[in-house]
Amino acid sequence: MKGNAIVAQSGGPTTVINASACGVIQEAFKHSEIEGMYAAFNGILGVLNEEIFDLGKEDPSAIEQLKTTPSSALGSCRHKVKTQEDFERIVSVFKKYDIRYFFYIGGNDSMDTADRVNKLANSENYEMRVMGVPKTIDNDLACTDHCPGYGSVIKYLAAMVMEAGKDTEALYTADTVNVIETMGRNAGWIAAGCALARRDEEDPPHIILLPERPFDKEEFKDRLKYYLDKLGRAVIVVSEGTRYADGTYIAEQKGDFAKDSFGHTQLGGAAMYIKDLVESEVKVKARFAIPSTIQRNGIHFASLNDSQEAYLAGQKAVQHAVGGTSGKMVTLERISDDPYRCDTGLAELVDVANGEKFLPKEWITKDGYFMTDDFIRYARPLIQGEVTPKLKDGLPVFMRFEKHFLKK
Amino acid sequence: MKGNAIVAQSGGPTTVINASACGVIQEAFKHSEIEGMYAAFNGILGVLNEEIFDLGKEDPSAIEQLKTTPSSALGSCRHKVKTQEDFERIVSVFKKYDIRYFFYIGGNDSMDTADRVNKLANSENYEMRVMGVPKTIDNDLACTDHCPGYGSVIKYLAAMVMEAGKDTEALYTADTVNVIETMGRNAGWIAAGCALARRDEEDPPHIILLPERPFDKEEFKDRLKYYLDKLGRAVIVVSEGTRYADGTYIAEQKGDFAKDSFGHTQLGGAAMYIKDLVESEVKVKARFAIPSTIQRNGIHFASLNDSQEAYLAGQKAVQHAVGGTSGKMVTLERISDDPYRCDTGLAELVDVANGEKFLPKEWITKDGYFMTDDFIRYARPLIQGEVTPKLKDGLPVFMRFEKHFLKK
Repeated sequence: MKGNAIVAQSGGPTTVINASACGVIQEAFKHSEIEGMYAAFNGILGVLNEEIFDLGKEDPSAIEQLKTTPSSALGSCRHKVKTQEDFERIVSVFKKYDIRYFFYIGGNDSMDTADRVNKLANSENYEMRVMGVPKTIDNDLACTDHCPGYGSVIKYLAAMVMEAGKDTEALYTADTVNVIETMGRNAGWIAAGCALARRDEEDPPHIILLPERPFDKEEFKDRLKYYLDKLGRAVIVVSEGTRYADGTYIAEQKGDFAKDSFGHTQLGGAAMYIKDLVESEVKVKARFAIPSTIQRNGIHFASLNDSQEAYLAGQKAVQHAVGGTSGKMVTLERISDDPYRCDTGLAELVDVANGEKFLPKEWITKDGYFMTDDFIRYARPLIQGEVTPKLKDGLPVFMRFEKHFLKK
Repeated sequence: MKGNAIVAQSGGPTTVINASACGVIQEAFKHSEIEGMYAAFNGILGVLNEEIFDLGKEDPSAIEQLKTTPSSALGSCRHKVKTQEDFERIVSVFKKYDIRYFFYIGGNDSMDTADRVNKLANSENYEMRVMGVPKTIDNDLACTDHCPGYGSVIKYLAAMVMEAGKDTEALYTADTVNVIETMGRNAGWIAAGCALARRDEEDPPHIILLPERPFDKEEFKDRLKYYLDKLGRAVIVVSEGTRYADGTYIAEQKGDFAKDSFGHTQLGGAAMYIKDLVESEVKVKARFAIPSTIQRNGIHFASLNDSQEAYLAGQKAVQHAVGGTSGKMVTLERISDDPYRCDTGLAELVDVANGEKFLPKEWITKDGYFMTDDFIRYARPLIQGEVTPKLKDGLPVFMRFEKHFLKK
């Protein structure tokens, strides 16, 4: 089917979401069916607002540099498409610009949007192919072994934990405990990944606090005291989603922006909470770090494996779409752990939209504060290899699109 | 003069303080005057408590790996030697173990200690050589062009700012402002170094808040609004030492550990303060990151230049000591910016102990929120080149001493 194609990025950026965009764009350029290759500026907002730019007019070297530029170079948003009017608007914009291919790189909210757009276009007999490309650092998408973005965030965080852990090892007589907060609102996948940092019992992290395990203050203090007795220090990784048995987050934010545009509670400060707890109740000095958005953009220490899979997912989405597939998301299907081999597959968008991949409870150690070897076997292949961004004057060089917007 | 030597690391770790230790140790092994090469475990505490281990019994490959291991492998402390009794104790321990060479890697508190030890030994007619090796991420030591540790912390932070800045550039429709907090209690050197991240006006950081410039809330909000109007977003770097005109820090910590063992006020939360201010008074959503100890241990993206200078400073300290010098600190003397050339020199320990190197006011732009080209010319050479730690399974490999303690 001949026509134009559009690609959009959605939600929180990742280190490798641009690699997926690169896979989509470079693959699309190879297929004569795809006439114009466009980008929606700032995710679905770019479609709704008709802010669409022509990727055919960008420098091919900038497109290549997507592989080594973190975050969403097309722009992203957190706009949840809800109303029938908005869905109709999206399809009408696609019709207006003869867009027959829609590649949406995002998480399950995005797959839901893509699915509805696909169905609406079908019902209006507008022939088009809609393909999802998975993206999330949270690693919680259903139907895929893992998600592009996850390997890089845990590789970088594990390195941070190792490095900051050396600080605590050296200075434990003054700064005895170090608390590092990771992202992960609902699932502990990210915090769990920090377990990769630990090669022996002296190594950090010593304790991992996961949303899956209700926070029990007294039990936590006992566990901490075990390490203080044994090593004289401890490094704690705490997921921002850590909560009490009653479901309350240990650190809920208050104020005007306490909820984001999806109505999600805004988090931040779990590490401060743990630091304060350690100081006031265990009576040793603690430090805390909150890497926040830094963790999901660390291209200078990103996983090459992750980046290559992100690219492949984008590339496959185009190949499948041109081949006639629609309404699916590209998945990653692991064949073996060691040697690591992974292929791609397809899942129904609706299954991804309505599903969620939980951190298996049996991968959490019995005491609740660390990960089992099964988890390590799962996670380790995801962090192999390093992306090497071009450097100039000692710092990375990132691309930025020129953005030649289509006339409305 | 024949005898044993001891090396100690003090205060907050840096990414390259182990490179200085490596320079001391490897150079010491070349000189027959130095019979035993020892380490004080946990800085001066190791001397006071006679916890001293023999570096001659360590694997030479572990010593070589100091160059690619962050933080203080000998152990560090924040113990300020104050009493005459303690100084006498130090000299008596040196006498007991026939220690004739003392290499102290640290900041100005350490240089003060080294100076007093040197003078006390002299007054007791105990012949020994005491040499200081500069170390501080704060870059505030007198008598030296810059300090080992500084180049690496600003290189890594600048990369973080670039990367997290891409997050804000992509997601400004939801997360409009990003605030990143740097260390730097008294001087803005570290926050200033983040200016290196900016290659054009779109690039972060857009605003840098320095301790040198009293924080004026209304003026800051105006400056922020300028960027929000112009770019729709802003990335703000805030030094933890940022304070109001009356000298109060914008974010003082409260509670049991509000002061450290030196009586310094503990900071943390300047970024949260700015985030809250932006949300409540400018009415846009903001995020914040606090890299904390992560920033000063980032060997995976450390400056090779910094690491090599750190090594050289340690090496030169030994050469000078063996040559008969005592009571001095090795300094770095810049010969030219471009091409960058730097030599070493010597300063009196007492001058370093009593001095402080301020961020030149004329290197801050007139508006107070950025750095001039003169600063960039100064700082850029310090971040050149990259240290490449050995990696295994996708993560760095760090050394740890076996620590063969001397019998008390």
